[in-house]
Amino acid sequence: TYLPAFKALVDANVEGFMGAYNRTNGEPCCGSKTLLKDLLRDKWGFDGYVTSDCGAISDFHLHHKITNVPTESVALALKNGCDLNCGNMYGYLLAALKEGLITEDMIRKSTIRLMKTRMKLGMFDKKTPFDDITYDVVDCEEHRRLNYEVACRAMVLLKNNGILPLDKTKLKNVAVIGPNANSISALEGNYHGTANQYHTVLESIREALPGARVNYSQGSHLYEYKIEDTGFSEARTQAEMADVVVLVVGLDETIEGEEMADKNFTGDKKDLLLPECQRDLIKAVCDSKTPVIIVNMSGSAIDFGYGNEHAAAIIQAWYPGAMGGKAVSDLIFGEYSPSGRLPVTFYRNDNNLPDFEDYSMDGRTYKFIKGKPLFPFGYGLSYTRFEYSNMKTDKNIINPGDPAKCFVNVKNTGKFQGEEIVELYIRDEEASFRVPHHKLCGTNRISLNAGEEKTVEFTVEPKDMCVIDDDGNYVYEGGRFTLFAGGHQPDGYSKDLTGTNCVSVEFQMR
Amino acid sequence: TYLPAFKALVDANVEGFMGAYNRTNGEPCCGSKTLLKDLLRDKWGFDGYVTSDCGAISDFHLHHKITNVPTESVALALKNGCDLNCGNMYGYLLAALKEGLITEDMIRKSTIRLMKTRMKLGMFDKKTPFDDITYDVVDCEEHRRLNYEVACRAMVLLKNNGILPLDKTKLKNVAVIGPNANSISALEGNYHGTANQYHTVLESIREALPGARVNYSQGSHLYEYKIEDTGFSEARTQAEMADVVVLVVGLDETIEGEEMADKNFTGDKKDLLLPECQRDLIKAVCDSKTPVIIVNMSGSAIDFGYGNEHAAAIIQAWYPGAMGGKAVSDLIFGEYSPSGRLPVTFYRNDNNLPDFEDYSMDGRTYKFIKGKPLFPFGYGLSYTRFEYSNMKTDKNIINPGDPAKCFVNVKNTGKFQGEEIVELYIRDEEASFRVPHHKLCGTNRISLNAGEEKTVEFTVEPKDMCVIDDDGNYVYEGGRFTLFAGGHQPDGYSKDLTGTNCVSVEFQMR
Repeated sequence: TYLPAFKALVDANVEGFMGAYNRTNGEPCCGSKTLLKDLLRDKWGFDGYVTSDCGAISDFHLHHKITNVPTESVALALKNGCDLNCGNMYGYLLAALKEGLITEDMIRKSTIRLMKTRMKLGMFDKKTPFDDITYDVVDCEEHRRLNYEVACRAMVLLKNNGILPLDKTKLKNVAVIGPNANSISALEGNYHGTANQYHTVLESIREALPGARVNYSQGSHLYEYKIEDTGFSEARTQAEMADVVVLVVGLDETIEGEEMADKNFTGDKKDLLLPECQRDLIKAVCDSKTPVIIVNMSGSAIDFGYGNEHAAAIIQAWYPGAMGGKAVSDLIFGEYSPSGRLPVTFYRNDNNLPDFEDYSMDGRTYKFIKGKPLFPFGYGLSYTRFEYSNMKTDKNIINPGDPAKCFVNVKNTGKFQGEEIVELYIRDEEASFRVPHHKLCGTNRISLNAGEEKTVEFTVEPKDMCVIDDDGNYVYEGGRFTLFAGGHQPDGYSKDLTGTNCVSVEFQMR
Repeated sequence: TYLPAFKALVDANVEGFMGAYNRTNGEPCCGSKTLLKDLLRDKWGFDGYVTSDCGAISDFHLHHKITNVPTESVALALKNGCDLNCGNMYGYLLAALKEGLITEDMIRKSTIRLMKTRMKLGMFDKKTPFDDITYDVVDCEEHRRLNYEVACRAMVLLKNNGILPLDKTKLKNVAVIGPNANSISALEGNYHGTANQYHTVLESIREALPGARVNYSQGSHLYEYKIEDTGFSEARTQAEMADVVVLVVGLDETIEGEEMADKNFTGDKKDLLLPECQRDLIKAVCDSKTPVIIVNMSGSAIDFGYGNEHAAAIIQAWYPGAMGGKAVSDLIFGEYSPSGRLPVTFYRNDNNLPDFEDYSMDGRTYKFIKGKPLFPFGYGLSYTRFEYSNMKTDKNIINPGDPAKCFVNVKNTGKFQGEEIVELYIRDEEASFRVPHHKLCGTNRISLNAGEEKTVEFTVEPKDMCVIDDDGNYVYEGGRFTLFAGGHQPDGYSKDLTGTNCVSVEFQMR
């Protein structure tokens, strides 16, 4: 489960790797012989550079207590091929050399790798193509449009009782409520620059409705229960007067990320719920007679609690960037049909997930989940309807190591032009090792006008037909496979949520 | 210096007083016999309610160590007429009663005062006029306009080398830079609700210049020196490309106010400078060839350091509210002529102010200042020019205890319609006690079209002709007085800064 993503990056010829802070099977990742040397360099043949995460090498002696002093830490890292130290520990390299912990050749090897990357970047050239990029490219029309389009495509419509899209012409009074409704921070997410112009949800809705009254209430603080929140009277009053409420909740970088400033929050979550003040705000607002559209900004799965049942619609907006508020507003008013799909499972908070330190994968992810999550991996609603038909493969019987081609027709049978992400899953029907329920082996985003039909083609790679034996090796095992294509996973719950079916085709591997 | 403001409030019939946290001459203010009983109740005859500041009564034993236990603290407060406790200490009143520290009559007296106020508020009436105010009054057109007008009137133009107002039609590229340029927090200030719609400086300038390129850079964090600030390359690049820079600096409630969250900031300032990262940002931006307009948002006096000399213009915008950015933008583009005046002295950081605990007033405020401040009390520039003439009083000789009427002609001799605050100062020329250089005894805001002239009338109150003897009593002392009228103080430095004169008239008190 964990290694294939890294292997794929080596195959894609990335320039650098960064080691993690934690220990894996006892070895700190930035000084791990198993990971950096045996696997990355020797087995996978990676010859780019490796850097530590910032401060990770001093962690060896300060926190992991794997080494005793800085010279031992830098020796452990360098020996195992960590070329660059984000931090200031590599000032001890010379001392480590004098103590005989490392050799000059090790330093030379790492230096060569680092300088090679710098050369590739043009840092020793008189002129690079980057020098000719003028400043007016920054925040130009084209980039802003891309920013907006990416935000639109990322939005996942999780729930819709039919209220969406809203008809702008019929709205007289809209309440935009919540700590993220006018938040720039929630647009930015983590590790961001500053944009030239931000479009919050509040501003974008106001702009979209020049003739309507748009009331705004922060509703609650992002995470602190303030004395004035008691009863949420402003939010409730605005909700009661409104035709519809857009309730923008979620997190931002102050409480979701690395090493939080507030002592009550850490990088690791205790549960999947929103902070208490927001949970209570959701309840207070949903208890009005007015329909509520929840917009959630977060970088991770959230269980919306009372909102799951009582909101008319739920939009997962992630941290959608400078144009994000406009993408939300345009989705709400039907300027485009949503097409985003969940790239993670949204579990229920009471889904009884395995322990944090249980790495067996039992019960984890869509591949091995037990029971129903809140919203499944690969799930997301649309304003239009796509029907799948005529799925077939180019061969019925495949030799081990050969790819398979697969075709499926997708037709937009609804009334909106819209994009669809066609998801392809494979299921190994006769494996003798543990295999997933099914696994994603292809996606394809297409755009279809109402009534239009397209044939989508996929190539199923040989590795997707492998099983993994008890020693972690990929092996071919002949037998029957099923391919599924649809706008979601081929499970009963996704079908119930969307009301649409996957189509499937079988093939045999020799 | 300190008491007259409180006396004026009693005279104006306010309903309640709140005691301060600190001790005055050894007595904690919320339990001070001298202040609350002898002065406020007995001497001034105040019969409204008195409340403690929040947590101030537990401070008696926890921090002031004036009392030993809660019952002693509440007894001290109640005895001296502090009727209401913001906090939860008054739960100990019954215990204090049982211990014999207070009497039932004291509790009854305070209760009557508090219930009287609640009755006045209509809290026991079936219906009050407030019940008929509908929600659509909130954020209505009229209130927004008032909000905008107040913000415009509060802006103080501190420096203008002639660059302002800017001609919108000539601008092709404007850089809006600084941590407060797009900050909502700096618009809000302290102890605020949330507005329905915020207009930041960045947004308002962008709106005012639909045809121009408006680049935005945060420039620096509000107070933390971040690694990416080194060299301020984004800000400098944008400044170099721009026709003009609007650099929005200052503070916000996270670093100016009570009990700051960040350990490096306290309610009391260490100096009058901006945080280091902003000082360096000002230098970096002012060192470009492009003229820089500094806009400062703060609730207090700031010394702009390098910006004092090197900025083309400086606007003190305070914490200007939800419409504040538009008020700044409209000032910059000459949609109105600035008329705000400094209500405090802006000292230079090296002005050698008296010690924090020196209450003698020597060297403090415009009344007793020694040397030149950065910008004087009462100072503020305009886009137009007002000339004063024909100042006179209704009588040349006045009896002690009589008011004096005073008249002055003000003419707008510039090219802009504009508002002017006419300031009236009085100087006691023959006092035998220490008196101020001069003191403000009247203001009048008038609006004049270009070329228009008005006569402004003031009444000088008898108390303004008093001196204060060594025992703190107001006494009449016959002699010669001078009245000054102008757009600023009658001092040489204000005259140098503005290029305009005050006019004056003398009278005699018997």
